Amino acid sequence: MLSDIEIAQQVKMQPVTEIAEKLGIDQDDLELYGKYKAKLSYDLIRKVEDRKPGKLVLVTAITPTPAGEGKSTTTVGLAQGLQKIGKKVIVALREPSLGPCFGIKGGAAGGGYSQVVPMEDINLHFTGDFHAITSAHMLLSAMLDNSIQQGNPLNIDPRRIIWKRVVDMNDRALRNIVIGLGGKAHGVPREDGFDITVASEVMAILCLASNLHDLKERLKRIVVAYNYDGKPVTAEDLHAAGAMAALLKDAVKPNLVQTLEHVPAIIHGGPFANIAHGCNSVMATRTALRLADFTITEAGFGADLGAEKFFDIKCRQAGLAPDACVLVATVRALKMHGGVAKADLKEPNVEAVKKGLPNLGKHIENIFKFGVPVVVAINIFAQDTKEELQAVYDYCAGMGVNVALSDVFAKGGEGGVELAKEVVALAESGMARFKPVYPLDMPLRKKVETIVKEIYGGDRVEFQAKAAQALDQYEKEGYGNLPVCMAKTQYSLSDDPALLGAPSGFTVNVKNAKISAGAGFIVIYTGDIMTMPGLPKKPAAENIDVTDEGKISGLF
Amino acid sequence: MLSDIEIAQQVKMQPVTEIAEKLGIDQDDLELYGKYKAKLSYDLIRKVEDRKPGKLVLVTAITPTPAGEGKSTTTVGLAQGLQKIGKKVIVALREPSLGPCFGIKGGAAGGGYSQVVPMEDINLHFTGDFHAITSAHMLLSAMLDNSIQQGNPLNIDPRRIIWKRVVDMNDRALRNIVIGLGGKAHGVPREDGFDITVASEVMAILCLASNLHDLKERLKRIVVAYNYDGKPVTAEDLHAAGAMAALLKDAVKPNLVQTLEHVPAIIHGGPFANIAHGCNSVMATRTALRLADFTITEAGFGADLGAEKFFDIKCRQAGLAPDACVLVATVRALKMHGGVAKADLKEPNVEAVKKGLPNLGKHIENIFKFGVPVVVAINIFAQDTKEELQAVYDYCAGMGVNVALSDVFAKGGEGGVELAKEVVALAESGMARFKPVYPLDMPLRKKVETIVKEIYGGDRVEFQAKAAQALDQYEKEGYGNLPVCMAKTQYSLSDDPALLGAPSGFTVNVKNAKISAGAGFIVIYTGDIMTMPGLPKKPAAENIDVTDEGKISGLF
Repeated sequence: MLSDIEIAQQVKMQPVTEIAEKLGIDQDDLELYGKYKAKLSYDLIRKVEDRKPGKLVLVTAITPTPAGEGKSTTTVGLAQGLQKIGKKVIVALREPSLGPCFGIKGGAAGGGYSQVVPMEDINLHFTGDFHAITSAHMLLSAMLDNSIQQGNPLNIDPRRIIWKRVVDMNDRALRNIVIGLGGKAHGVPREDGFDITVASEVMAILCLASNLHDLKERLKRIVVAYNYDGKPVTAEDLHAAGAMAALLKDAVKPNLVQTLEHVPAIIHGGPFANIAHGCNSVMATRTALRLADFTITEAGFGADLGAEKFFDIKCRQAGLAPDACVLVATVRALKMHGGVAKADLKEPNVEAVKKGLPNLGKHIENIFKFGVPVVVAINIFAQDTKEELQAVYDYCAGMGVNVALSDVFAKGGEGGVELAKEVVALAESGMARFKPVYPLDMPLRKKVETIVKEIYGGDRVEFQAKAAQALDQYEKEGYGNLPVCMAKTQYSLSDDPALLGAPSGFTVNVKNAKISAGAGFIVIYTGDIMTMPGLPKKPAAENIDVTDEGKISGLF
Repeated sequence: MLSDIEIAQQVKMQPVTEIAEKLGIDQDDLELYGKYKAKLSYDLIRKVEDRKPGKLVLVTAITPTPAGEGKSTTTVGLAQGLQKIGKKVIVALREPSLGPCFGIKGGAAGGGYSQVVPMEDINLHFTGDFHAITSAHMLLSAMLDNSIQQGNPLNIDPRRIIWKRVVDMNDRALRNIVIGLGGKAHGVPREDGFDITVASEVMAILCLASNLHDLKERLKRIVVAYNYDGKPVTAEDLHAAGAMAALLKDAVKPNLVQTLEHVPAIIHGGPFANIAHGCNSVMATRTALRLADFTITEAGFGADLGAEKFFDIKCRQAGLAPDACVLVATVRALKMHGGVAKADLKEPNVEAVKKGLPNLGKHIENIFKFGVPVVVAINIFAQDTKEELQAVYDYCAGMGVNVALSDVFAKGGEGGVELAKEVVALAESGMARFKPVYPLDMPLRKKVETIVKEIYGGDRVEFQAKAAQALDQYEKEGYGNLPVCMAKTQYSLSDDPALLGAPSGFTVNVKNAKISAGAGFIVIYTGDIMTMPGLPKKPAAENIDVTDEGKISGLF
């Protein structure tokens, strides 16, 4: 079997101008980045704004194994399948983060014969969006510390700064640092730390902004610190938002590339799926809907996190109404939820599959709660048996849900035709009646409780003192009508990664809460969330190389 | 008078494909970044390699005032002047640094009617080269600390790490930091600090590399630390060079833009002019020479620093033979060298001009020592009097050097025609007999002494213990045949910024030395060099804004 990068490098890409032509985009509305990448102009976005949107399809997954269930690959393959049956389709994905490419594995560009290309570029600098986000974030950091250094006119309490620095690199040594050392000329000493760029609130803002104007207004609202009177200090107080927006003026434009089968792909934005909402940008999704009849998008982690935030945060805020949902499952993951140990997951075990199916069932039920019809996609592996697959069919039939086998990793779009047909039927059925699971005027704690009870299947929520205090403060400061953004393990419907299947009766423990006033949500921490990864003993970077002609190897 | 950005935004740019056409570059050999920026492909660089090079002209300056003497503006204006008289010309400049745009002033994109455009892009992210350099540098940092964390197999002494981190931002609070805090899982605590990206050795390497292969070999040679046995640890020891080169595969390609009068401009690389050599990239200069009859380039700071390094480091290493040199002077700076206080520089004072002329004379003499013919360009201002200008003419005539008035800030290429004609005559005279001022096989201290005596006009050099020890060590380690890269104040020919004019009899004090084994030089510190600027009380960033349509204001 060829590696992902080998497959990607074998395929002859079409010039991005030809990809754009398929969508009726004039060359004047493209800003080319080489021959195979382009940004969509403001003009184009404005021109198509009033068109009737096409169908919006979300791809999400059951509670995953650590290896992942192939959600991105299925998303790309489904889009290729739709093209195979003659539909005008765009796949709208997140941009991958640079740092993890040098760690264990990287990339969110699909896999096998269902990838987006040029994959090396997409995984490395792409069109520079993440670099622009890093710069805008770091400018705010520099202006913050400069304000303290220059007499501290805003009366900022250096012990209460919540705006950390960022870099797009896995660099654990920067997690906890002390800055401003060296004496009077070199700043005011204080504790600080770096997050990885995808964890930046600027990333979340870019992804939720409707346009450049909205982006700037959101940047202004960022809370960076508290002053000695306990009042929030914002980016607007530091007069930083204009320059930050100037740095982001191109980054807000969606990027057009293609899949291995030349399906148009709009890849834009990539916020964390735990401390942020984990979806591609609103501008990308909205524009895609007006350029194609079907827009296929995905959300990070399992449906309890990714789909919930996609629906409750992104769709609500952006006025999007999804038409159908694809729930990706693997027989392997179902066996894991049925209690099989990692080492035995390759052995046939139909009983374990049956025992694990309630996890799938709970996610189906949850998606129904948002008023969105769902089809289950089994991402098949060679070792899956007929009996195991039949168990899934039977279970889903009992819930009135169709199942489609997907073999897009090995076969590309051809392996996604069955799923594509199901998706078309579902999206065109008119069954969707999208609604969020909680209203915005609900108190913050009640919102958390609603998610825990309705979506996770838990019994109650315990707010630790720090969290309770923070939430009270946010309500008092007028942020009570924001949605909540749950930061929870992706490996269980509960907040305990060891609780597999569809657990019930559990209590979710909320340890802390943090405002992202610019993004427009309150992050709810149910555990320690790692926002700066480290490198492993033998980093993937050691195997990456480039020929004298510029051809990259070792990147997956 | 309009601001630089207003002038730049008034001009209708030509598509970069048309600019390329003027140079006979096929569209297939361009990698477009939007409509007005492009990278030149590896293929093009290889295709033109064997062509006969055109004339190479260096623009340098006398010892400048803090405001600068308009060297970049003269460089751009001269190129426009050459186009006006029918010459096929390229201006080859450095890329400006992002960070300083948000500080006091920024930009190295020329000024008035002699600018390169799109100036906002060039000053902000441009084609992402500096971001790629930051990423490559920071990857090496992360791999270094990760190696120490993962059992320290290379036996690195954390007290002897010489590889700092970088960010392209003026951020003084990051100058001196402590990293790796927080306990065992979060790295090994040690002192560290950030430089601004232009100070990165990766920047110097990119600018001196002949091609991607050479780049990778240089990256391998970077010395990042010493082990407990006192032996150097390199990027190759950390297996980092392949991934770093992969990150830089596009950044090594020169960028094509245009001046306000549509003269092709190749803007590529931007190393510091003190701790590095301060010139644009070798790949850009070499390619420009093969695409045009005249290539106009510049080097940072005054001729004692910029021109010396251009000749002794860049030209020698790249096999370039400059044909002519333009020495930029202003009446204002000559008055300053004649002892006039800053507040009185606008007053006519022909005596002060005469007293200041030996500074100009010393720089002329120096350029002759490199075997390069020179013309003096007076960057004129409204307040300059006939008598003052005549004094310059008379003085230069005495040295056998022509003078041309340049008014390119106000008049664009038209204001540079006189200078252009002088430059053509000089470059085509065949007078140039380029030679470096010291041979590479000279001992390191002797090289420093040669520069101090021959170029600065000093009497002797004093090496402080730290410097002497470092230089002895480098000789012993086999680095003795590298050129030296002088880090000295730009405001005096000596190492004391208060010594104006053409001082003599002084001693230069060498405080330290540091190896840049990848770039291929030994940095000689004659004072404290600031490698991370800070923001002022009211940062320029506070005035920068962007309209809803993406038009930037307040950037100069």
